[in-house]
Amino acid sequence: MSNRIYNFNAGPAALPLPVLEEIQAEFLDFKGSGMSVTEVSHRSKWFDDVIEDAVTRTKRLLGLGDQFDVLFLQGGASLQFCMVPMNLCPPDQPADYVDTGTWSTKAIKEARGLGRSVNVVASSADKNFSYIPKEIRFSPDAAYVHLTSNNTIKGTQWSAFPETGKVPLVSDMSSDVMSRVFDPAPFGVIYAGAQKNLGPAGATLVLLRRDMRDRVPEALPTMLKYTTFAEKNSMFNTPPCFAIYAVSLVLKWLEETIGGLAQMEARNREKADLLYEAIDVDPFYQGTAERESRSVMNVTFRLPEASLESRFVQEALENGMGGLKGHRSVGGCRASIYNSTSLDAVKALVDFMKTFAQKYG
Amino acid sequence: MSNRIYNFNAGPAALPLPVLEEIQAEFLDFKGSGMSVTEVSHRSKWFDDVIEDAVTRTKRLLGLGDQFDVLFLQGGASLQFCMVPMNLCPPDQPADYVDTGTWSTKAIKEARGLGRSVNVVASSADKNFSYIPKEIRFSPDAAYVHLTSNNTIKGTQWSAFPETGKVPLVSDMSSDVMSRVFDPAPFGVIYAGAQKNLGPAGATLVLLRRDMRDRVPEALPTMLKYTTFAEKNSMFNTPPCFAIYAVSLVLKWLEETIGGLAQMEARNREKADLLYEAIDVDPFYQGTAERESRSVMNVTFRLPEASLESRFVQEALENGMGGLKGHRSVGGCRASIYNSTSLDAVKALVDFMKTFAQKYG
Repeated sequence: MSNRIYNFNAGPAALPLPVLEEIQAEFLDFKGSGMSVTEVSHRSKWFDDVIEDAVTRTKRLLGLGDQFDVLFLQGGASLQFCMVPMNLCPPDQPADYVDTGTWSTKAIKEARGLGRSVNVVASSADKNFSYIPKEIRFSPDAAYVHLTSNNTIKGTQWSAFPETGKVPLVSDMSSDVMSRVFDPAPFGVIYAGAQKNLGPAGATLVLLRRDMRDRVPEALPTMLKYTTFAEKNSMFNTPPCFAIYAVSLVLKWLEETIGGLAQMEARNREKADLLYEAIDVDPFYQGTAERESRSVMNVTFRLPEASLESRFVQEALENGMGGLKGHRSVGGCRASIYNSTSLDAVKALVDFMKTFAQKYG
Repeated sequence: MSNRIYNFNAGPAALPLPVLEEIQAEFLDFKGSGMSVTEVSHRSKWFDDVIEDAVTRTKRLLGLGDQFDVLFLQGGASLQFCMVPMNLCPPDQPADYVDTGTWSTKAIKEARGLGRSVNVVASSADKNFSYIPKEIRFSPDAAYVHLTSNNTIKGTQWSAFPETGKVPLVSDMSSDVMSRVFDPAPFGVIYAGAQKNLGPAGATLVLLRRDMRDRVPEALPTMLKYTTFAEKNSMFNTPPCFAIYAVSLVLKWLEETIGGLAQMEARNREKADLLYEAIDVDPFYQGTAERESRSVMNVTFRLPEASLESRFVQEALENGMGGLKGHRSVGGCRASIYNSTSLDAVKALVDFMKTFAQKYG
């Protein structure tokens, strides 16, 4: 498809072309059912196979074993901001939160809105959220420690997760789930909107460690309880079938074409290194995140003037590269280089950056 | 597509073939964006046009004017079962519910679970939910009157809505929204999972009458407040973009190919009449709903024996007709004939029913 652009969107974001082509090819007749995948019943063998495939691949890729339930919910990470404290934090117990900007800040707001006692145990607000805090003192009595593994807007990422002893970690991994190898064992809950590394918008992956089930209060509304989804393999009611189907194909691509998370991580690192090098080598570009907190997923940078940034975004688009505008809350430029963004796309961007700097620098 | 079956699924259900073909044709390059519709940003002009189209067509088809907000949420009708009382029913005010089975029953359970005082002002539980109650005495002080406009499982439907004076109606219209003309003015909220008449699973249409905004408690979690969605045109966070896109195409088909709701209603009536006639003419088939409560969307019937019902479903499938098994909670047979199911499909089914009855009757 020669008319496809290099897509650096922050989410919804690029998907692997072979996945899109497979969806397209079988869109009118899914696996010989005589129906589109959007028309088959979620109670059919066809869809059972789809969700089972998505769950099994998730477990295999992340090495989850049977310690975790793999759930597909709706409402995005934003709904998880309230579901996490509702399900996991008793009203009389505090919860620790690390504030690394925007999404963490919203998660804190929702927990407090529910009347929970939130300890903000660390924050990078003092430097405009340009770094990931270190040497944090956690509360031994906290219900959990919440952190946002990657900040799409500020371009920061936890390179390793903190030790919290017996207190479970809870993480919003919307923008870096499945991008690297990590140990899931310390996490009580991991949640991620699909629309960055997993698939199209409309599904939310929730990984629920089995022992967390016991915390879920019986009195919560049915659709806000993790156990409702855990007990029915995410099908208490009609799930977001198309999004889950697309996720299953993305995970197949990740396993069978890329080779798994270690290979994916190496590719992602190579892409990010190339791009950060292009920024560091030329003072025309200024990275906005502190070096050791830099995200491998979202590369944020500034040019000498806002007018040049607009021109950069515009000329990049004319050269077949889209989605390079920074988040509306911070301005600047941002290249989101999730799993599906190819090395070729990054090389093309780096070449463009050199040319652009020569022209306007 | 000769390998497409006649699809009588209860939901997810049949979609218009021209809609599926349009999705397929532009799946790798949406409107010249160089991206799939699943890859464009929800903050882009491309998606703005999509959601604006879906909202405008909804308003036009239902004659809503500016009195209503048209919202797209996630979580299905099941999430609305708790969101409705959370948003619209103050803790010290009762709410009236009519219980016509399964979905109404669940809605009542969720309202009670939130501690609300629920008056079940009428119920058809006495006759296995085979009819729609009449001559109901509503509570003058109720926050709202809740009813399920169509019961997919029992095959019943409100042919007209009750007068409730100043008390707003609230209705789960998941299985008959956009199937007929009705006056929306008495409704405070109408909600509907998309996966029957509107599009694929993954979006929930919520029509919110403007004066209902004032009832929404400030302290609710952000993602559970209708006002969050009303104030941001459903884009406080990333919406279910693909499902909304598909809904916009279904609504375009409804307006431009069918000609609007009056025409759709006439077609639906014709399909239902044909099918009920086939049931009434032959004692081999027994309709399960009382005649004047019969649904135009879900036609439920029994055969003399359960073994014949299984055979009916199986042989129908062999003849290119799928989805005819009754809901697992009640058994029997069910033909769901939503908007997208063609008259040809119904004619084929009626022919098959005649042949089957001759063979086994």
